[in-house]
Amino acid sequence: MGIVGLGLIGGSLGLDLRQRGLEVRALVHRPSTAERARERGLADQVDTDPAVLQPCGLVVLALPLDQLLHPPAALEAALPAEAVLTDVGSVKAPVLERWRGGRWRFVASHPMAGTAQAGVEAGVAGLFAERPWVATPEADTDPGALEQVRQLAELVGARWLCCDASQHDRAVALISHMPVLVSAALLEAADGENDGATAQLARQLASSGFADTSRIGGGNPALGTLMARSNRDAVLAALGRYRRQIEALEQLVQQQRWGELEQRLSRCQQLRPEFLPPAAATEPPGPPAADGKR
Amino acid sequence: MGIVGLGLIGGSLGLDLRQRGLEVRALVHRPSTAERARERGLADQVDTDPAVLQPCGLVVLALPLDQLLHPPAALEAALPAEAVLTDVGSVKAPVLERWRGGRWRFVASHPMAGTAQAGVEAGVAGLFAERPWVATPEADTDPGALEQVRQLAELVGARWLCCDASQHDRAVALISHMPVLVSAALLEAADGENDGATAQLARQLASSGFADTSRIGGGNPALGTLMARSNRDAVLAALGRYRRQIEALEQLVQQQRWGELEQRLSRCQQLRPEFLPPAAATEPPGPPAADGKR
Repeated sequence: MGIVGLGLIGGSLGLDLRQRGLEVRALVHRPSTAERARERGLADQVDTDPAVLQPCGLVVLALPLDQLLHPPAALEAALPAEAVLTDVGSVKAPVLERWRGGRWRFVASHPMAGTAQAGVEAGVAGLFAERPWVATPEADTDPGALEQVRQLAELVGARWLCCDASQHDRAVALISHMPVLVSAALLEAADGENDGATAQLARQLASSGFADTSRIGGGNPALGTLMARSNRDAVLAALGRYRRQIEALEQLVQQQRWGELEQRLSRCQQLRPEFLPPAAATEPPGPPAADGKR
Repeated sequence: MGIVGLGLIGGSLGLDLRQRGLEVRALVHRPSTAERARERGLADQVDTDPAVLQPCGLVVLALPLDQLLHPPAALEAALPAEAVLTDVGSVKAPVLERWRGGRWRFVASHPMAGTAQAGVEAGVAGLFAERPWVATPEADTDPGALEQVRQLAELVGARWLCCDASQHDRAVALISHMPVLVSAALLEAADGENDGATAQLARQLASSGFADTSRIGGGNPALGTLMARSNRDAVLAALGRYRRQIEALEQLVQQQRWGELEQRLSRCQQLRPEFLPPAAATEPPGPPAADGKR
């Protein structure tokens, strides 16, 4: 069992697999990372020499999306031929374009788990439990390889899902990539208040509702950009659909069509639970936007 | 000390004031509410007869905004003349329009505290601690009355703020009322995916990032509508500014201006802490939008 990269995903995977008795061999870039990974027990063997992966029949490329799309030549050369290879990238079509048809049996996959942390300190046991692990097999994907990746995912407690790569990319554009821009635009709009006193007051009065709605917009700028860049068509489609909803709501307020506005908000109230992860599905709407009246 | 209405705000206020040794007299609408409020000890005297308020020198109208804007005639008739009167409405200009110049000394105010709960069971002790309590005095507001309301707010541990009513209404439009529509449009857009399989997949893959960004959009439809309705001009201005930010981000993605997009997202990352409530100001960005890569 091989892992390339011991950040949040690779490190967490190493911890879970070792706990279940598998021998984990890991390739990392920096000697300092290798040392720290050994201290943390993220893998049985950690090395900066790609040779560490030679015995591995299944290798997980636990690398950031940009490195998956532009892998160092040395890495490719070092990957054991015939090995089953999978990735963890959050956009699947470009990853497939880059990795299909190599010397290995590639299965594109996306474990949808995480925390706010990153790097060699980020890995935690149990990260994948009950979280979706999506695979996007193609017509010529080796069924045996797909099965191996499924067993890996289920071994760490993930919920296995298979779908078309473009379907995956459209879905994550809707629920992950586009919302980052929606949330960022809220921060820009709140900052755009021209009257300085009101802008200051808005900062003083902002409460948990604003904090939640703006959270992912205030996240890592490089990652937000990379998602939009590598999933551009789906993000544009989702963002265009979102903009039209905003325009429609603006019209209802402009034209004082309050009954229709309330109907649409009622529909939203019904919709939201459908999008909540199983764990959270029973949560109450949570604290109000800015006061006791929401 | 009088309170009209013993819901989340009125009930919490009653609990805090009694804890601090004040005698609290409360007027409620339903006999069943009065009984339950007595059981919960929300006030010393609870009655459905407005006469209960007669001895009170300071009365808090802890009513929903719609009832503040359209109070029952019986209530107005029963309010003790000369009493200092304040409200808890989340929009101030229309409340002032309705209540200024009466037989009482009116101070418009807005305690910005709350939970997701409502009704006679909702009141909790300590709700206002460290939360803003905004007053919007006018030129002819009685300074003595304003001082009494300030002492009330500080007695329950709130952070006292004074500003112009229109300034307050613009600020809450930015950080509370407009964000509800921003968040609701996200649910509508995610639901608007035409391919049924992708729509279903989006529901399965939505994670904490989507849950947070959509939370206030999935809240009480009647309240969201009432906020837009009673603060229409400010909400329209804020929503228009927001729409222009969305259009700008859409253009950057369309034209693949990735450097500018990353710059804007970096600015958002810097901005967000300015809008976090003191308690949360030190919180990490929190869990990722949909996976470990944000």
